[in-house]
Amino acid sequence: MSHTANSFALPRLPVIAIVGVGLIGGSIAAALKSNGKVGRVLGVGRHRASLAQAKDLGLIDEVLGLEQAVTRADIVILATPVGAIAPLLKTMAPSLQPHTIVTDVGSTKQSIVQQAAQCLKEKVSQFVPGHPIAGAEQTGPEAAQASLFQQRYVILTPHAQSAKSAIDAVTLLWEQCGARVLTMAPPVHDKVLASVSHLPHLLSSAYMWQVAAAEDADQRLSIAGTGFRDITRLAAGSPEMWHDIFLANQDAVLGELRELRKVLAAFEDLLAAKDSDGILEFLERAALARRFWGSRRRQ
Amino acid sequence: MSHTANSFALPRLPVIAIVGVGLIGGSIAAALKSNGKVGRVLGVGRHRASLAQAKDLGLIDEVLGLEQAVTRADIVILATPVGAIAPLLKTMAPSLQPHTIVTDVGSTKQSIVQQAAQCLKEKVSQFVPGHPIAGAEQTGPEAAQASLFQQRYVILTPHAQSAKSAIDAVTLLWEQCGARVLTMAPPVHDKVLASVSHLPHLLSSAYMWQVAAAEDADQRLSIAGTGFRDITRLAAGSPEMWHDIFLANQDAVLGELRELRKVLAAFEDLLAAKDSDGILEFLERAALARRFWGSRRRQ
Repeated sequence: MSHTANSFALPRLPVIAIVGVGLIGGSIAAALKSNGKVGRVLGVGRHRASLAQAKDLGLIDEVLGLEQAVTRADIVILATPVGAIAPLLKTMAPSLQPHTIVTDVGSTKQSIVQQAAQCLKEKVSQFVPGHPIAGAEQTGPEAAQASLFQQRYVILTPHAQSAKSAIDAVTLLWEQCGARVLTMAPPVHDKVLASVSHLPHLLSSAYMWQVAAAEDADQRLSIAGTGFRDITRLAAGSPEMWHDIFLANQDAVLGELRELRKVLAAFEDLLAAKDSDGILEFLERAALARRFWGSRRRQ
Repeated sequence: MSHTANSFALPRLPVIAIVGVGLIGGSIAAALKSNGKVGRVLGVGRHRASLAQAKDLGLIDEVLGLEQAVTRADIVILATPVGAIAPLLKTMAPSLQPHTIVTDVGSTKQSIVQQAAQCLKEKVSQFVPGHPIAGAEQTGPEAAQASLFQQRYVILTPHAQSAKSAIDAVTLLWEQCGARVLTMAPPVHDKVLASVSHLPHLLSSAYMWQVAAAEDADQRLSIAGTGFRDITRLAAGSPEMWHDIFLANQDAVLGELRELRKVLAAFEDLLAAKDSDGILEFLERAALARRFWGSRRRQ
């Protein structure tokens, strides 16, 4: 091959293999196809019906097995739940051509980076871990939309062996999907995401669980209103996907959960003592912080 | 007077005094005016500018002091924060005519019912405590809307001395605003609301506080997405209003908070032990409960 392990560049119309053609994988295909930045799109996955649907929708051009797709691709995008990524890297490693770039969209990065070196060995320079901060309530290829990543952040967490040229190529790919690309060290990514994404899901689920488990759950649920709706919305998300995320990001999630439990204990003390000033100050700080965030983000 | 303490009926076009013409008070006026179910609407409040605005908007016909308004009204609606209700009952008691009904919209009921007997003495039969389960992100009379209570629940929590005819009159008034009226004992109301309304606000605020207080808060907030947005939306609500609610409903809120902390501790144990099945089951139960609630409520 004419390529060296340290120089990667995607052709103008790259062949892309998408492993897991759901909301995220399908939306990447839709975005690149909508602006003519992609050659052939190869779809790989476990669910035949879902792949057939993706083909009917025009998201992918062909359904292939993992090895065949990897052999033919200029870039492989792993868009599966977090727990499937390391096994996929291991299985595909022998088929991976020297010029091919691999990236993923997993919601946790530290554990994937640690496993990637073992799975890919010397080919690990071809791997650029990534995570698009985007989602939607629906799942599956029918929910895919070309605009899903517009103005959204994508965080790349390159490791020491990631080739600079591969990082550049993945950055360009995401920019072509309309995203803004940031780079973070894997542990920093995991800590920040544990805080702003994983803990909200955990809180929403724990609260929903508590209400549903109460003896008078029916009465509670019958009069629950818009506040309840907002705070429990996340709890409806895929249990399988979140199970993988919590296990993969165990340390950071536990750290954030402990911090939150301290804050709850502090509020409990204020309320038990009927500390009027303390309660007001607590609520004011939270309200100001949320209003400031909302005014900057218009949310 | 021809009325006895045990027989109340509002005239076809009652004179209504609204104390606190904000979102809730203003929306009651708007709803009754929009379907011609009210005579004169008298506005009472501490904020002159807000009352002037309510008059400009046609929500109230006249601005009066508390005593004058109470003397002239067929029904007095206290639509202030919870902490102001008992002092208002005490101040207005001497002016309260024997035929006049009093109700409130406070978010907690047990403490108000306990204080009402002391404040109103033998006139307590004229008082029907109530709580509309409705709200909006905006506040103030400019946010008032005639449709705010359509298909929403209003919970009345009559006490032993509440006159049956007064309860019936307040029920009819709310039904004329489009609401569905439920009746609960005050402590039951407070426990249920602590669960489905007060705890969500507390969780949202505590979580927002924790993120904003972190050393790397800027980085966290810059990549926070839709999950963060949903779970923190409540935290932006009025600190003064929620301060009153937490203090007035101290026991029930502390009880629910303790239950939630147990659930969080249980999840922490599952995650610390990497109990894969336990984590999945936890998330599945929460997701099923939320999806079931959402499918019934279309939310």
